Amino acid sequence: MSRAPLLGSIDAIVFDLYGTLFDVHSVGAQCEAAFPGQGAAISQLWRQKQIEYTWLRSLMGRYEDFERVTEDALRHACRSLGLPLREGQTQELAKAYLTLSSFPEVPSALERLRALGLPLAILSNGSPRTIEKVVGHAGLKNSFAALISVDGLRIYKPHPSVYQLAVDRLGVSKERILFVSANAWDASGAKSFGFRVAWLDRTGRAFDELGEIPDAVIADLMSLLLDESRIADV
Amino acid sequence: MSRAPLLGSIDAIVFDLYGTLFDVHSVGAQCEAAFPGQGAAISQLWRQKQIEYTWLRSLMGRYEDFERVTEDALRHACRSLGLPLREGQTQELAKAYLTLSSFPEVPSALERLRALGLPLAILSNGSPRTIEKVVGHAGLKNSFAALISVDGLRIYKPHPSVYQLAVDRLGVSKERILFVSANAWDASGAKSFGFRVAWLDRTGRAFDELGEIPDAVIADLMSLLLDESRIADV
Repeated sequence: MSRAPLLGSIDAIVFDLYGTLFDVHSVGAQCEAAFPGQGAAISQLWRQKQIEYTWLRSLMGRYEDFERVTEDALRHACRSLGLPLREGQTQELAKAYLTLSSFPEVPSALERLRALGLPLAILSNGSPRTIEKVVGHAGLKNSFAALISVDGLRIYKPHPSVYQLAVDRLGVSKERILFVSANAWDASGAKSFGFRVAWLDRTGRAFDELGEIPDAVIADLMSLLLDESRIADV
Repeated sequence: MSRAPLLGSIDAIVFDLYGTLFDVHSVGAQCEAAFPGQGAAISQLWRQKQIEYTWLRSLMGRYEDFERVTEDALRHACRSLGLPLREGQTQELAKAYLTLSSFPEVPSALERLRALGLPLAILSNGSPRTIEKVVGHAGLKNSFAALISVDGLRIYKPHPSVYQLAVDRLGVSKERILFVSANAWDASGAKSFGFRVAWLDRTGRAFDELGEIPDAVIADLMSLLLDESRIADV
């Protein structure tokens, strides 16, 4: 792969939400307050199961919305760890997913990308209500031309019909959309669908082996602007 | 749920293979020999990614057979752990999946179940060649009336069409098939499809929260014969 200027040949940027713009492990503090000494363990397993359940329910043809899946995953995580979770506590902790923190550079990076005249959008597993809340809480609503949820389709990423939603909503052909995700499996699904893809790798992980290679690997969102994306080495 | 005699109202038993009849972590010894001190870590991550990749490839519509997925998952596991894996080593270690050990009680339990006149089958994500090799290596081929692979469908569990394969092959209606799996997500998929389901829980884990409850939870295969299945408490 040659080092292509990422923003030169695209007409829109579509971002994943969870783990990409917002730090899913910022819920760890609430978990820690509820179960001292277990915050990180809960947060890790909760996220792992949350993602697994979106895949499994999609394959089973048993869609339930992301809020339900999030609560189910928390219940499983606490049972696995042998922690007593009261029903009221489930909803309370799941609410932490509505007030996630964005990663530090996100607000200013989005502002500068918007200033380039590129429409920005979010494509997320979250329900419309959830996406609105998370983005609204962070004061980032004005950054986006569209907030796109899988909920109308009743299937989750990485089913190709989900990525098609962004094409339809933005009216931009898929090869002129740059899709940015920190989730390697999501980046793989988007690449398999036909987007140009930047994998956001904040911590130097190994990309997933799903037969796809991202067009670029970036360490943070600012790299999109500076075109400091390193060549994908995956 | 009342305590139903599991074998009273069924006409066939269908078993999952990996993790249910055969111990996937028996590959740990080969991993340990190749990377001293890392055998268990490789084996855990390898299995986790192997399953994830079956789900993800199914959702992406990018089926590759189980041998390919197994090798890809091993490559990812070693890269994630920072271990150098030579290409020849990949195939060599992946071969360990063809000579998995069965759990100790499996041969005698299968023999006694067969003696009851119930047809037994395997329904597995493995390719036909893989299933044959694993079962043949353990000397258990004669135990089964059918070895059923997802490979013809080019999609993995828990897609409902996979479970339908067993109905079609055995000519038994789904509510008269008992499906046995140690994988909670597989047990959930099978229950959602309409099988009677026994979840094999050898180690006291938490069942998955996918909106399904197994008909019984058993600690080993002998429990099927003794009808010592404890009431599902999940």
